[in-house]
Amino acid sequence: MSQRRPTPEGIASAAKRVAPHVTKTPLLPLDWQGRRVWIKAECLQQVGSFKLRGATNRLLLLTEKEGARGVVAFSSGNHAQGVAIAAARLGISATIVMPADAPAVKRDATLAAGARIVEYDRETESREEIGARLAAESGATLVPSFDDVDIIEGQGSAGVEIGEQLGRSPSRVIVPCGGGGLSAGIALALAQAQVITAEPEGWDDMARSLEAGEILSVAPDAPPTRCDALQTKRVSVLTFEALHDSGASGVAASEAQIAAAMAFAARHLRLVVEPGGAAALAAVLAGRAGPLDDDTVILVSGGNVDPLLYAEILRSSAGR
Amino acid sequence: MSQRRPTPEGIASAAKRVAPHVTKTPLLPLDWQGRRVWIKAECLQQVGSFKLRGATNRLLLLTEKEGARGVVAFSSGNHAQGVAIAAARLGISATIVMPADAPAVKRDATLAAGARIVEYDRETESREEIGARLAAESGATLVPSFDDVDIIEGQGSAGVEIGEQLGRSPSRVIVPCGGGGLSAGIALALAQAQVITAEPEGWDDMARSLEAGEILSVAPDAPPTRCDALQTKRVSVLTFEALHDSGASGVAASEAQIAAAMAFAARHLRLVVEPGGAAALAAVLAGRAGPLDDDTVILVSGGNVDPLLYAEILRSSAGR
Repeated sequence: MSQRRPTPEGIASAAKRVAPHVTKTPLLPLDWQGRRVWIKAECLQQVGSFKLRGATNRLLLLTEKEGARGVVAFSSGNHAQGVAIAAARLGISATIVMPADAPAVKRDATLAAGARIVEYDRETESREEIGARLAAESGATLVPSFDDVDIIEGQGSAGVEIGEQLGRSPSRVIVPCGGGGLSAGIALALAQAQVITAEPEGWDDMARSLEAGEILSVAPDAPPTRCDALQTKRVSVLTFEALHDSGASGVAASEAQIAAAMAFAARHLRLVVEPGGAAALAAVLAGRAGPLDDDTVILVSGGNVDPLLYAEILRSSAGR
Repeated sequence: MSQRRPTPEGIASAAKRVAPHVTKTPLLPLDWQGRRVWIKAECLQQVGSFKLRGATNRLLLLTEKEGARGVVAFSSGNHAQGVAIAAARLGISATIVMPADAPAVKRDATLAAGARIVEYDRETESREEIGARLAAESGATLVPSFDDVDIIEGQGSAGVEIGEQLGRSPSRVIVPCGGGGLSAGIALALAQAQVITAEPEGWDDMARSLEAGEILSVAPDAPPTRCDALQTKRVSVLTFEALHDSGASGVAASEAQIAAAMAFAARHLRLVVEPGGAAALAAVLAGRAGPLDDDTVILVSGGNVDPLLYAEILRSSAGR
């Protein structure tokens, strides 16, 4: 039996389905180095990241019986918030498996949405196993953060909006990449565009996988990164294949480049961007994403950053 | 001869005129205290404030001969940037009279746009006199920051957008107020809405004027404020009358409330807001702007804040 794959048609349907429930985030102009490039500001999405799109699409597709048994998700935070809010709005109970060291700002928002949180140790426990066990015990539906057709198609609604807002296909879209749900959805939604994934250095497994033509994992000794939203150790077949088949490639940005991009976004775009959300902008500003033109779109994927960390990054960058 | 006044018809024309030149800034939902209120995010306008609207409208209405002689403006910063960018795009030379203590972030952006800056001392010199002298010497056109029909009508384009984006008239719009150009334009554009101006404590001359039914100046011993964009010592007949005739009233926010609103905007809206731009949000969060409903719109008017000051405000607020 062939596995179901995300498709452009599925994304078009998802975009219509989620439209009443999500913010059509602005495509903001950025005049830079003689070019006008475009920022798709998903940090302005409700709950502060694109994750509401996929979660809403997935939950709207549950049967009434499935909805009554609730949902379980595992996430470092943004997916957790997306599932928690989407579930609360649809009257579905949600349990979130979250690392004990998740940013307080993401944890608090998940709790505020009325979800139950189950903590795990990122180093010693498997969130996949905990999530599967909780789902099996309660009959709840597991809502993966990226390895799921409906999730990928829901995230792709951001790509549909980009095409509508620009009035044409972008030439290239640079997208922060964790598991690849957003970048895969955008690659399918905008088939004429070159998609470039952006990851933190050492966590650029999607870039290496796309170059190798097969899925490669993050090395066990990957360096620490502030990009909690992009700390995915292995992408999925669904996201890898969608990106690979579209001819996508990937780049990496350093922690310093990401901090500089966060300061740039605050000053020149007046957007609060979390580290993972700034990976694509960082790659562009550092000249790692190739030549720009007026049809270039940079996706800013989230803005949930601990206020003290954020203040410290801005302070350090201002001194330079 | 009766003086020309800003009108709803003039604002409708201005909105069409400036639309190709300005960003249609998003109207973002904010779920708060059981209500969904709306944030008109003019900090996401090009050059970081609504001022581009009025400046663009004014400059588009210059004759060819007037345009060739250039323009002069006096401003603490946001109007300067608006005029500088609008002029550069239209091929018009611009001279900006700016206080020597203007925020570096605003000064730098004005210079980057190619404008000439003439500094003055806020305590001892009159920017009005300097501006008038420069204009007389060169034959350039003086572009006031608020005491001008075309400027007020241009700012009113933000109100036209609010009506379109909400799909109905807001019940109330709370607007940061310096000279009153934006709030007057919005009051005229949205005749069904109650407009409430928001000013820093001690600088709430528009609020006092609206209550008294006549223009009152800021007291000579007004306290220091971080809201450089709202430090106007006396509003104009044009802006006062438009607001007074619409039944507008005014409120004041403290410096602490404004700092808290800036931190709130960063965390819950992912918007970088400057002190003056946060005055309306501050008044609402502090409960000073009356009961909210789902048709309430809060205008965030600018996001040009010195990075070090901004980092310090976020750091202090996070500790609370």
